[in-house]
Amino acid sequence: MDEFSFIKWIRNNQKKDKNIIIGIGDDCSSIKINHNLLYLITTDMLVEGTHFELKKNTPRKIGRKSIACSISDIAAMGCPAKYAVVSICFPLKTKTRFAKELFLGMKEEADEYNIKIIGGDIVSGKKMLAINVTMFGKNDGLKPVTRSGAKVDDAIMVTGTLGGSILRKHISFKPRLKESLILNKKFSINSMIDVSDGLVADLNHLLEESGAGAILYEDKIPISADAKKLARKTGLSVLYHALHDGEDYELLFTLSNKESERLLASRSFSIRVSKIGHIKKPGGIFMQDSNRKLRKIKPLGYKHFK
Amino acid sequence: MDEFSFIKWIRNNQKKDKNIIIGIGDDCSSIKINHNLLYLITTDMLVEGTHFELKKNTPRKIGRKSIACSISDIAAMGCPAKYAVVSICFPLKTKTRFAKELFLGMKEEADEYNIKIIGGDIVSGKKMLAINVTMFGKNDGLKPVTRSGAKVDDAIMVTGTLGGSILRKHISFKPRLKESLILNKKFSINSMIDVSDGLVADLNHLLEESGAGAILYEDKIPISADAKKLARKTGLSVLYHALHDGEDYELLFTLSNKESERLLASRSFSIRVSKIGHIKKPGGIFMQDSNRKLRKIKPLGYKHFK
Repeated sequence: MDEFSFIKWIRNNQKKDKNIIIGIGDDCSSIKINHNLLYLITTDMLVEGTHFELKKNTPRKIGRKSIACSISDIAAMGCPAKYAVVSICFPLKTKTRFAKELFLGMKEEADEYNIKIIGGDIVSGKKMLAINVTMFGKNDGLKPVTRSGAKVDDAIMVTGTLGGSILRKHISFKPRLKESLILNKKFSINSMIDVSDGLVADLNHLLEESGAGAILYEDKIPISADAKKLARKTGLSVLYHALHDGEDYELLFTLSNKESERLLASRSFSIRVSKIGHIKKPGGIFMQDSNRKLRKIKPLGYKHFK
Repeated sequence: MDEFSFIKWIRNNQKKDKNIIIGIGDDCSSIKINHNLLYLITTDMLVEGTHFELKKNTPRKIGRKSIACSISDIAAMGCPAKYAVVSICFPLKTKTRFAKELFLGMKEEADEYNIKIIGGDIVSGKKMLAINVTMFGKNDGLKPVTRSGAKVDDAIMVTGTLGGSILRKHISFKPRLKESLILNKKFSINSMIDVSDGLVADLNHLLEESGAGAILYEDKIPISADAKKLARKTGLSVLYHALHDGEDYELLFTLSNKESERLLASRSFSIRVSKIGHIKKPGGIFMQDSNRKLRKIKPLGYKHFK
């Protein structure tokens, strides 16, 4: 059983609650406070060896990443992030300077997005550094964008460029909070997710929640310079890296074709936004090549369990 | 620098926020939602080798404990617990059955207190099991009881019996949520904390936040059967174990002497409640023996760092 089956099993074990507007299976959970106020909650654990390497990265960067991942989850709902509580398990014999640098990285990242760190827990463990961030967003009059609202014929769009994040971006990405708020305020977005497991894997999560399928356009996938660089090392295609590498932390979203045209014509964004496909009826994900030939593709992406 | 100095350093690095009623340095943080609604938030990480041993405990019990610790933190504020989000880092090659049992333990404990698990994160790590629980309480018209409200001449009281929790109670304690709600609804409680680091260590946290000192009565400390049992093994005194062992998860609170008399005369509680000392001006913690002689005692308790 992989982690996704485990999460499904957990979900089937849950009772309904009228105040839980969005529960397990989206980027955030959501608690209804009153008729127009929602709190969004996301929790993320980052552990040494899986999400970062102590030898390759400074504690400052690891701290920044731990906060940035959670911001990205709130961004995936199209709502502002407000507060965070953090837990850190330091390995025994951690030096004070390391601990301070890690926290300063967290605070630096949080400050940039005007998020307050309001509490936490500090423990020690024999074996590894682990960080958990729980972050809170507030809808501020906006409707959170879920994974489940994709409609047939919606355009599929993505911010930035994809692939090869392991070379650099995974530890120093900019979560797309500003862009997500513009999207949710100025456009009618039907569904959204952040790309953490890989483009196809995350598209698959979105399609599962929406009960839909998709066609991607091979020549429209925005490929990063690092995907090209990495492909030269791995021998895999650049497209493979763009489709399946994790931790790009870009926004993947769907909206009506008309809205997507309006978005592309607008000058709301300083970053690249690409129309990469469209939603169709359920039946999986297909890749359309430049000759309009279709082939089915499978979600690979990162899995924590096999 | 130990974890408490580190937390102080973090605290001094924080900006004020008008909606943060209670911040770093209490059992929970608190966000003001509107003039009479507060949300309480606590986050706790439990890691293998520090908070539990896989060889000694079933995954079901470990799951229960992870939720119970957070309930105890909400109980320490005298308010009801409502929701939780959980993150679990499973070591590679974790068996499905183990993962399910762990989650079922969490759910069992949460269900007993009518708490809903509304979201989470599942990851894998090379080295160890780590669990983080972030729990939310709601004040429901009550005023949260902080660590900082102890007044000179307050009686110091504690629920249950203390010491030797490592033998049994640390993995299977009942968090004192029901008792804490009775305390906060029926009595005027000035300050409260849960005993997780050890009686004297946690009293010291409470005194630091309140700017006060304390005298404890040696013959009034409620000693558990397991403290006696453990003392026979360790060669330390039973009193030592009752004062300094961690993870009792009892409630330690202060209230006026009059209120404490009213509490002792009432039949609100099915569990033992003991008056163990009183608050005095700052100057540390003293132990008063049966001849009324005072000696100064130091907070020892569990420290994650040296």
